[in-house]
Amino acid sequence: MKSAMANRSNIPVLYAGVEGGGSHSAISLFDASGKCLAECDGPCINFLLIGMPEAESRIRGLVDEALKLADLPQNTTLRSLGLSLSGCEVAETNESFRQGLLERHPTMTEVCYVCSDTVGTIATAFEDGGLCLIAGTGSNSLLLKADGSTHRCGGWGHLFGDEGSAWWVAHEAIKWVFDEDDNLRRPPHSTDAVREAIHTCFGVKDRFGLLAHAYTNFQKHRFATLCGHVAAAARLGDPLSLQLFEEAGAWLGRHVVALLPHVDKEMLTAERGLQVAVAGAVFRSWPLLRDGFVAATGPHVAAFQLLELRGSLCSAGASSAGHRLPRDCSQQTRLLCSWRQ
Amino acid sequence: MKSAMANRSNIPVLYAGVEGGGSHSAISLFDASGKCLAECDGPCINFLLIGMPEAESRIRGLVDEALKLADLPQNTTLRSLGLSLSGCEVAETNESFRQGLLERHPTMTEVCYVCSDTVGTIATAFEDGGLCLIAGTGSNSLLLKADGSTHRCGGWGHLFGDEGSAWWVAHEAIKWVFDEDDNLRRPPHSTDAVREAIHTCFGVKDRFGLLAHAYTNFQKHRFATLCGHVAAAARLGDPLSLQLFEEAGAWLGRHVVALLPHVDKEMLTAERGLQVAVAGAVFRSWPLLRDGFVAATGPHVAAFQLLELRGSLCSAGASSAGHRLPRDCSQQTRLLCSWRQ
Repeated sequence: MKSAMANRSNIPVLYAGVEGGGSHSAISLFDASGKCLAECDGPCINFLLIGMPEAESRIRGLVDEALKLADLPQNTTLRSLGLSLSGCEVAETNESFRQGLLERHPTMTEVCYVCSDTVGTIATAFEDGGLCLIAGTGSNSLLLKADGSTHRCGGWGHLFGDEGSAWWVAHEAIKWVFDEDDNLRRPPHSTDAVREAIHTCFGVKDRFGLLAHAYTNFQKHRFATLCGHVAAAARLGDPLSLQLFEEAGAWLGRHVVALLPHVDKEMLTAERGLQVAVAGAVFRSWPLLRDGFVAATGPHVAAFQLLELRGSLCSAGASSAGHRLPRDCSQQTRLLCSWRQ
Repeated sequence: MKSAMANRSNIPVLYAGVEGGGSHSAISLFDASGKCLAECDGPCINFLLIGMPEAESRIRGLVDEALKLADLPQNTTLRSLGLSLSGCEVAETNESFRQGLLERHPTMTEVCYVCSDTVGTIATAFEDGGLCLIAGTGSNSLLLKADGSTHRCGGWGHLFGDEGSAWWVAHEAIKWVFDEDDNLRRPPHSTDAVREAIHTCFGVKDRFGLLAHAYTNFQKHRFATLCGHVAAAARLGDPLSLQLFEEAGAWLGRHVVALLPHVDKEMLTAERGLQVAVAGAVFRSWPLLRDGFVAATGPHVAAFQLLELRGSLCSAGASSAGHRLPRDCSQQTRLLCSWRQ
């Protein structure tokens, strides 16, 4: 086996960034010039959902796959590995995860940096901090100010947060069906399309069939998948699905509004409006979210722009190793929405 | 080891009933005359929460303990074992659990009967069916009609049901604290007492400390314990805690209202009012639930009586073995509340 030192003499200095969420993950591998050598995808990496050992193993798998794609030896040691993962909200736990990963995979990388997906998103989209909003399997938001201070709203997982996320949309859809069948609450619209979506997604014939998915074998990403089916129903005009996405948009807007008291005046009064970096698959349904989002945020901001990330979130990790990869933040996002009162 | 046949010649024919919920369980051991030989308590028995192998093992443990208390040999075979367990809502799954239990503990009982805690409660409280409402760690309700047909509302666990349960009260309490700190929603009252309750119950210094309890090491009964602390705060007059219990009462009332369209006219117009058998630790806080419950049910019924079970729910199991234990249903309940418009 080649040592890390031996590797370095033969092959480029390598930086990798991994982003991990409740359903998907992705890795990008760069050389020191910022050139991307490989990119690939993987499954959920959130250690609150799958446990630390499995998360470590999936990260190792992604690194191996990226090295292979770049035609580099499997035992190559990275200069730096940046991990931007959902569920990484507690500094102590992140540090324990980082140390465990380095102990069990000592030749994988020289340096490892772990941050939440919110921090990773902001580091990718903005030079000096900013505001981000995530709506993937779960949801979260963060304000990272130029002085380094942070403020957050959400990110408490499917039991105590996640409003506006794919989990949330799926949960609301299922709950309306359950409550209608129980005669507990009357849905605002027909549940037919949502029932069909649940049936297609889970292949269950009745509500009891969902209990195994919810309890004995809970996989959050299965519920996130249902959100995609509900989005499809909404695009076909199903009123209940449309309402769920409008409500999701309103909850996401409230996450931004919650952070406004901490936002610097310059950010709020910027000519283009408040810049918000957004990430997560739910934003693919932005037209469905828009009315709810604007209704929630409109009374509180004069203008806003939502910036969607183009690529993966590796820059935070790479720069943490004392090497700021050549990059242009403005090139890493594209405008999803520009709104003005 | 004595065989079951050998046992039977020496010792009384034995019937046992186990009731199991999300936090507690209990067993009662009877002889053929209906005399109670032993009673004892155990931890959560809900196979959706702890898995089937652990549930089997806890049931075996309860039977062993009851036999020991009754001064009977550990290898004594019961004539019948009735299990009235929360989470036992699906006939197929119940049958698979029953068979697994008998296979792995072939000498424990000749006959085993598995039903949901709602069915067990009704079988204990009423001769010929009735309506029951459960609010323990989780919540549920069931109408078992004289013709054997059933109608249900709730019982979908902490992700899709459980309104008005101990889990629900705890969840609401925690969620208000999270949302206040996030500036996401403004609580209707001070959260000080509820924060203190969370701190006392979980021993955590901040919200991050709760994440391990909620995700990596989720134990529903830990949250049910918090409900007791919130009840204590309510009794001391804390407005938020009082409101949470009033809302819990309203949700429980809605569970009853949801079943009314299926209730026979004779039950509805009975002189004493609609009889509802109630079970679960949340009803210990009935004075806190009452206003919400009456507000939800009052517009829909002329009168109701809530009957609380006195002992454990073994009769369902015992009677299923073809032997109806001598019993007087009216002696198995006590009046918790009698209400009239």
